[in-house]
Amino acid sequence: MKEGIFFGEGMKFVKDDYPDIYDAVVGLNKAAYTGKVLDYKTQKLIAIGIVAATGDETATEKQMRSGMNELNITKEEIVDALRVVLLTSGMPAFTKAMRLVSKL
Amino acid sequence: MKEGIFFGEGMKFVKDDYPDIYDAVVGLNKAAYTGKVLDYKTQKLIAIGIVAATGDETATEKQMRSGMNELNITKEEIVDALRVVLLTSGMPAFTKAMRLVSKL
Amino acid sequence: MKEGIFFGEGMKFVKDDYPDIYDAVVGLNKAAYTGKVLDYKTQKLIAIGIVAATGDETATEKQMRSGMNELNITKEEIVDALRVVLLTSGMPAFTKAMRLVSKL
Amino acid sequence: MKEGIFFGEGMKFVKDDYPDIYDAVVGLNKAAYTGKVLDYKTQKLIAIGIVAATGDETATEKQMRSGMNELNITKEEIVDALRVVLLTSGMPAFTKAMRLVSKL
Amino acid sequence: MKEGIFFGEGMKFVKDDYPDIYDAVVGLNKAAYTGKVLDYKTQKLIAIGIVAATGDETATEKQMRSGMNELNITKEEIVDALRVVLLTSGMPAFTKAMRLVSKL
Amino acid sequence: MKEGIFFGEGMKFVKDDYPDIYDAVVGLNKAAYTGKVLDYKTQKLIAIGIVAATGDETATEKQMRSGMNELNITKEEIVDALRVVLLTSGMPAFTKAMRLVSKL
Repeated sequence: MKEGIFFGEGMKFVKDDYPDIYDAVVGLNKAAYTGKVLDYKTQKLIAIGIVAATGDETATEKQMRSGMNELNITKEEIVDALRVVLLTSGMPAFTKAMRLVSKL
Repeated sequence: MKEGIFFGEGMKFVKDDYPDIYDAVVGLNKAAYTGKVLDYKTQKLIAIGIVAATGDETATEKQMRSGMNELNITKEEIVDALRVVLLTSGMPAFTKAMRLVSKL
Repeated sequence: MKEGIFFGEGMKFVKDDYPDIYDAVVGLNKAAYTGKVLDYKTQKLIAIGIVAATGDETATEKQMRSGMNELNITKEEIVDALRVVLLTSGMPAFTKAMRLVSKL
Repeated sequence: MKEGIFFGEGMKFVKDDYPDIYDAVVGLNKAAYTGKVLDYKTQKLIAIGIVAATGDETATEKQMRSGMNELNITKEEIVDALRVVLLTSGMPAFTKAMRLVSKL
Repeated sequence: MKEGIFFGEGMKFVKDDYPDIYDAVVGLNKAAYTGKVLDYKTQKLIAIGIVAATGDETATEKQMRSGMNELNITKEEIVDALRVVLLTSGMPAFTKAMRLVSKL
Repeated sequence: MKEGIFFGEGMKFVKDDYPDIYDAVVGLNKAAYTGKVLDYKTQKLIAIGIVAATGDETATEKQMRSGMNELNITKEEIVDALRVVLLTSGMPAFTKAMRLVSKL
């Protein structure tokens, strides 16, 4: 389900102890992934591209895995998203993300 | 054509005075936008998301315009990409990009 | 009111055309600025520090102005926030923000 | 003491081998945290917000711990600072920082 | 003189109204640009690369101009620094900086 | 050789499975490090400064090591590059990189 995306360890803690933040995040997440014309899979590939471009390995791996598990996104599709990262964001972000892909 | 994407004022100068850089950029651009499974339009939407997430207005507008002109990407599709930016990158990046969309 | 913070030109467009995003943003904004122990003014100073640290002039000026208008935050208080920006984020971000302060 | 803030392993090396840099950093640190109107605790919360917004886990944890040890900043106050991070900087930075808080 | 580097409009205001910050910045600036083995010109080229990589046009132009005026850094040398920006930081940062160079 | 720079684990995978990307990266890398007037060592120091400024430890360490191995860049030269990082990018990036240097 879509709510699972960023909902790792940090969010479990939020849900238990900060229900007002949790509700806002659920609302945000729903608005984010309820595109009017783009499907969820395309939006997910955009999310993968954005987090990979920031060089954040933890978030990138989480996005890749949730995309593969929830949406059957393939490695090939992820690599095509990372091609764009190479162009827009340079080699360190790209190679870091490709190393993750090679281990998925 | 795909080569047009980042090829504004800065690249004209590169093409004339630094042909070795220009050739590398053309090769990079071609590899980036020749996805094996994703089509060019999906990759373009990923590029729009990435540059919008960085808060770079000039690059974001350029990407949006080239996407609309070259690929008939609609405002609605761009907004769906920016929904992901809101989630991953916060309000300042999102509102900046939405203001651009509202003026396209 | 707290809702006014990021709600410039871009958000007017969101409110009119994308009510589902607007509602999510209002919820997010409310959760963000309803601290349990910190008051709104302290949170606002944190927001000023964060956006100034990114070097985003438009967002920084907007935050500074809304802080001064809504919460009577003084220039002196903003400068004390920017001292932290100098330490954590370096000279370009700091001088850019100080130039904004000098013109408020 | 205020000098302790960023003064982990890296700074020990600086102090021993590069006294000119060390002196500049001490001066910088002092100017940064000697606010005219904001107290040190408020400035520290701003610092926590800024580093958490960049997604830098090591620096964020260090800032959180020094804030709790030196200034008796509570988890609740840190969470209120991170609410602002969620709004300004998005989910990956927020959840990463919340996971740190949950383990403090 | 080396003190001139970041010392634009924002710093004039700092010097007049916040002498304690000003002194810290002067100390920082001196420590930064008093390399033990690298000369000032090499350090300046590094500064140009770093600010160009962040995509900050204002700071990049200021660094380029001060490098050309103070140190007789040539356009050709700046372009060689920007080649590294292309590799490490991607096309938007690179083309933005190249456009600046083309107008110097 | 110059091709070795970013060519860690991630690139081995690229070379084997995505020869078109690999070729583009080799071309990019060659154009980046074939300065017309700056020598490779100066460009490498710029690369070290840029990646250290982003706070990316993995990439920074890789750049430092390749600079020391390929080009006999000394610790002292790296520290002089990091002085610029302190000025332009703040304490967290600087201390992180200095800790790396202290362990090289």
